[in-house]
Amino acid sequence: MASLILQIFFLAVTLATSQGSPLSHYPLQMHLLRSKWGSGGHHVPGMSCLSWRLAVETNNKIGWSTVPEECEDYVGHYMLGSQYREDSAVITDEAFAHAKTFKLAGDGKDIWVFDVDETTLSNLPYYAKHGFGAEPYNSTAFNQWVFTGEALALPESLKLYRKLLSIGIKVVFLTGRSEDQRAVTSNNLKNAGYHIWEKLILKSSSYSGKTAVFYKSSERAKLEKKGYRIIGNIGDQWSDLLGTSVGNRTFKLPDPMYYIS
Amino acid sequence: MASLILQIFFLAVTLATSQGSPLSHYPLQMHLLRSKWGSGGHHVPGMSCLSWRLAVETNNKIGWSTVPEECEDYVGHYMLGSQYREDSAVITDEAFAHAKTFKLAGDGKDIWVFDVDETTLSNLPYYAKHGFGAEPYNSTAFNQWVFTGEALALPESLKLYRKLLSIGIKVVFLTGRSEDQRAVTSNNLKNAGYHIWEKLILKSSSYSGKTAVFYKSSERAKLEKKGYRIIGNIGDQWSDLLGTSVGNRTFKLPDPMYYIS
Repeated sequence: MASLILQIFFLAVTLATSQGSPLSHYPLQMHLLRSKWGSGGHHVPGMSCLSWRLAVETNNKIGWSTVPEECEDYVGHYMLGSQYREDSAVITDEAFAHAKTFKLAGDGKDIWVFDVDETTLSNLPYYAKHGFGAEPYNSTAFNQWVFTGEALALPESLKLYRKLLSIGIKVVFLTGRSEDQRAVTSNNLKNAGYHIWEKLILKSSSYSGKTAVFYKSSERAKLEKKGYRIIGNIGDQWSDLLGTSVGNRTFKLPDPMYYIS
Repeated sequence: MASLILQIFFLAVTLATSQGSPLSHYPLQMHLLRSKWGSGGHHVPGMSCLSWRLAVETNNKIGWSTVPEECEDYVGHYMLGSQYREDSAVITDEAFAHAKTFKLAGDGKDIWVFDVDETTLSNLPYYAKHGFGAEPYNSTAFNQWVFTGEALALPESLKLYRKLLSIGIKVVFLTGRSEDQRAVTSNNLKNAGYHIWEKLILKSSSYSGKTAVFYKSSERAKLEKKGYRIIGNIGDQWSDLLGTSVGNRTFKLPDPMYYIS
């Protein structure tokens, strides 16, 4: 049965992806290059959420506040399904390949910067109850969730964390969570399997009103000033990875649920 | 019939994306948040190409020379199907929304930088005959193709080009094509519908051996020195968009076929 379903799935994918775009006659011209299936020219409903997600992940779409209503189900399926996990695995594998080939000084100053939410810990249990980002962000409700300390490990990130430690790279957590969430964050990290770290940097009130790019760039610069070398930097938001002192290489994990500038 | 196929397609997608990952038991835990469909835990063959493409488009995978052999069909279907077109449309719409809201000086110095290959012109007829990037790059064969002058307009880019001109933004083409390809490129652009431009910048031999990031950053800096303001910058390669003088905002079009550093 599962095999039959998969066969139908791939037949359907083949048919769907080989159809021309409804936007003009141009892709039909392209289709001359390969044989045609189906009648072509039909819009495939729901596909725009795929394009929306790609635009988000590539930083083409910025400054958005909620997932489009019509994409709530799409984002939910993505986050709960295997694709999110597989997308993450390809990226963390790439990250470790970089770490492994990088010439480490081995003096204890080689570090890797991890963002926390949706990078190290998953708040999916919260977002699953709040429309996967389709509901407007509610800081009261979200902070209540944070204080439960029940965020889950992101399994591919946990693997990367362990592998980095095993080759002598130290880990710094750099999060937009506030200083008053230090204890619960620290306990949550430990319960999720992240037992040691060089530093856990939370956003102090002095950064209130500043962007994540500014806050994170400033804190990374401080790390470098202390002699640390940022071998890699991983986050789910482009604001974790843009700005200054970004590290030797940056890695963007998927997150179609929210945007932080 | 088409409707039935689509129904089967979405049923199959729903089933496939709601399955747990084969990598561990972790996603099954997540599935408690929503009802389960299917038997779960089965790997969906071919899905890794989706992850590969996402990693490429997000600049997580860099420095690769060919599309993985097992992804040739996947990339071919993507490039020839409607998804490539729809992904591009979301990005060019976003680009124009940016241009429209940007406060233009209106002194003829507001420009938009377009890369050429796979941004303005499509070489898909060539790549369709060369494994969609799965064959190693052959500069002789590719340059022969360039000299035919038969590259096609990318329809969403052409629309963006026209809309930008209509609000008074001038267009600069900045391409990695070499100076000796000026005439054929110029004719090809015109035949494809791009009739006017402020500048067409090709790679002079003085940049030989330099990266695209260096070449394009240098040329953009020269434009700024001449008083131009780069309102936007669009390309299919991250090397079109990284570096310096990148412009007020950058836009990354899809290209899973090749990588230029």
